[in-house]
Amino acid sequence: MALIVHKYGGTSVGSTERIKNVARRVAKWHAAGHKMVVVPSAMSGETNRLLGLAKELSARPDPRELDVIAATGEQVTIGLLAIALMELGLKARSYTGAQVKVLTDSAYTKARIMDIDDRSIRADLDRGMVVVVAGFQGMDEAGNITTLGRGGSDTSAVALAAALKADECLIYTDVDGVYTTDPRIVEDARRLRTVTFEEMLEMASLGSKVLQIRSVEFAGKYKVPLRVLSSLTDPMMPIAEEAASGTLITFEEDQKMEQAVISGIAFNRDEAKITVMGVPDRPGIAYQILGPIGDANIDVDMIIQNASVGGLTDFSFTVNRAEYPKALEVLNSKVKGAINAAEIRGDDKVCKVSMVGVGMRTHAGIASQMFRTLSEEGINIQMISTSEIKISVVIDDKYMELAVRALHNAFGLDQAS
Amino acid sequence: MALIVHKYGGTSVGSTERIKNVARRVAKWHAAGHKMVVVPSAMSGETNRLLGLAKELSARPDPRELDVIAATGEQVTIGLLAIALMELGLKARSYTGAQVKVLTDSAYTKARIMDIDDRSIRADLDRGMVVVVAGFQGMDEAGNITTLGRGGSDTSAVALAAALKADECLIYTDVDGVYTTDPRIVEDARRLRTVTFEEMLEMASLGSKVLQIRSVEFAGKYKVPLRVLSSLTDPMMPIAEEAASGTLITFEEDQKMEQAVISGIAFNRDEAKITVMGVPDRPGIAYQILGPIGDANIDVDMIIQNASVGGLTDFSFTVNRAEYPKALEVLNSKVKGAINAAEIRGDDKVCKVSMVGVGMRTHAGIASQMFRTLSEEGINIQMISTSEIKISVVIDDKYMELAVRALHNAFGLDQAS
Repeated sequence: MALIVHKYGGTSVGSTERIKNVARRVAKWHAAGHKMVVVPSAMSGETNRLLGLAKELSARPDPRELDVIAATGEQVTIGLLAIALMELGLKARSYTGAQVKVLTDSAYTKARIMDIDDRSIRADLDRGMVVVVAGFQGMDEAGNITTLGRGGSDTSAVALAAALKADECLIYTDVDGVYTTDPRIVEDARRLRTVTFEEMLEMASLGSKVLQIRSVEFAGKYKVPLRVLSSLTDPMMPIAEEAASGTLITFEEDQKMEQAVISGIAFNRDEAKITVMGVPDRPGIAYQILGPIGDANIDVDMIIQNASVGGLTDFSFTVNRAEYPKALEVLNSKVKGAINAAEIRGDDKVCKVSMVGVGMRTHAGIASQMFRTLSEEGINIQMISTSEIKISVVIDDKYMELAVRALHNAFGLDQAS
Repeated sequence: MALIVHKYGGTSVGSTERIKNVARRVAKWHAAGHKMVVVPSAMSGETNRLLGLAKELSARPDPRELDVIAATGEQVTIGLLAIALMELGLKARSYTGAQVKVLTDSAYTKARIMDIDDRSIRADLDRGMVVVVAGFQGMDEAGNITTLGRGGSDTSAVALAAALKADECLIYTDVDGVYTTDPRIVEDARRLRTVTFEEMLEMASLGSKVLQIRSVEFAGKYKVPLRVLSSLTDPMMPIAEEAASGTLITFEEDQKMEQAVISGIAFNRDEAKITVMGVPDRPGIAYQILGPIGDANIDVDMIIQNASVGGLTDFSFTVNRAEYPKALEVLNSKVKGAINAAEIRGDDKVCKVSMVGVGMRTHAGIASQMFRTLSEEGINIQMISTSEIKISVVIDDKYMELAVRALHNAFGLDQAS
């Protein structure tokens, strides 16, 4: 008998029929003797509908009131799911974030969980109840409703699992796990049976949209075993089979069964590259360039400064493609003259491709094999950035699929190790 | 400078455009120097949509969870209205029932307000804020979300007005006041400038759907001046004109300007009449007949027992037309044999017409004038029931409009007094 947290995304609870399926699945786990806590998202489309209403009233709606509005999406789902569970003969009870209570800071629309009071939930579980908790939301010290930001229900589920010391947190979604890369790009992309938190963090931040990154950080910090699996399977499939499906995200490398050097290939098409050319190579120049960019609320991803030639250097960085025009404007109006740069160049037809794997730490030659593979395909590398378990390159947008497929093949990711 | 509570019904906040109009109207009152508390309902159709989802999951959804779901309707509106008010440059803040807090009993879906903590609202008002409070909802001692039942936002507004000792509670709706009768039936029905609480109670329970009856009881108990007026007027109309529009519901007969004997004519078409014939005239017989009816959750309205003839009497009562078949079945299966009644007769083609007025107390002859008027139109009276300020008759359904028009004319209700 274990304490299990299930989290269901918006698609999984997108209709009353689907909510009934979630109830059947939860009932099956409960019947197997587990204490069950379930965290549903809002029904798919609902959060967008609600925020759309607010946008009709104001171009910049007050964030406190946005959270009051958005939190209703999950509140509807918890009530519906509790009803569906009772219809199956189970005892069930719903909780909003405030009712639990899930205490957060007051950063509306992107609040962080500070503490979870688990007493009511534990008492209910001890009485054999299934507890349904609204994801995505909490309450600050003053009693204001807060939300955790997009995808925050993942974080809610992991935080609850941590507070309750759950045996496992299962994240049900519309994919059946974490893949070596996007199967829409590479046909023989393979589902990973396990992946480490570190790898998952690198994959998530690079565009694998399976899990909200903060939930992975949270799970790593509190060592919550996390499993991503599909909610589209038959809800009555044998529980042993279901418990072993999907991808397990482990917090110890030892637990990782598949000792491949590379776990996966992530990519991001929404990139743009900017180079400030001919800038004086002196202390503080990076801040003089990126300070105004940060002030304009533009996020910077990769940053590269070339070796200095004759006291002048080139300074390159990437931004989200949508913010490319704004970034150029800031540089031309506020930076170029101030630092006496020769030229501002940019390209918004680039993409980023990254290879991720904890095995990289102990295997030399990964980078060179990556560069050789791209070279053999005639793909020019425009920028390179590396970390302990990741190598990223910026290349021409049009070669993205080719690069991902070639690397996937070259590193044998289609073959189970 | 006064403390004013505005309540807006679902139609009045049925779209973001209408919410903007509500914000403009509230801003106008605020600009006139009043402290403003606003209580909106859910957007029209939203509560039905939410309860419909629950019904798709269960024929008898758990009432606690129904309240969790239904309460979200108003929660969305308070956030939207607060945003619309801020967009006009006002300071505004929303509160759910739980946040206020509006303490209720635990009778889910029909909870009663026990207490209102007005401290946060007063503090906000003192800081010049417009306070937006979700109608229809509260929280019980244990922190569970409760709702007050259909039309409960009226009660919320009146209860808040009572707790805050507001100078007036304005109920904005899609009609411009209380009429002498339904203008759809009688073309020259006239809006009443004032009506007493007692009259309003009789009118409301008889089918005038302007105000939820419990809100009127509440206003009478706590002596909250209540005004019903239209939200469909120009939001920028002069405030003095608006403040005097609609119908004022007064708690002292002295305040009533129009001293007409009769204030209005109410009617209800959803009636059915049942007569149990030839029952022994002995103590307890009424209970033997109506006990099983009550056990079947059928509400009884009028009850009449004729004088006894030879130890046998006839016993008549009315029920809602929708419950007529069920009532007949109960009587035939459980009552008829038990009390040895001669026959059960019924008619579901009847209606009830009622004349209401506090002036009735001091004016004799109202009943006879009513009966004469109906007689002159050839309308047979099947049942009669009277109270201090009301006379009701049951007549053939097909004569309803004719009866209402004839009485409206005979008592001069089309003429301002």
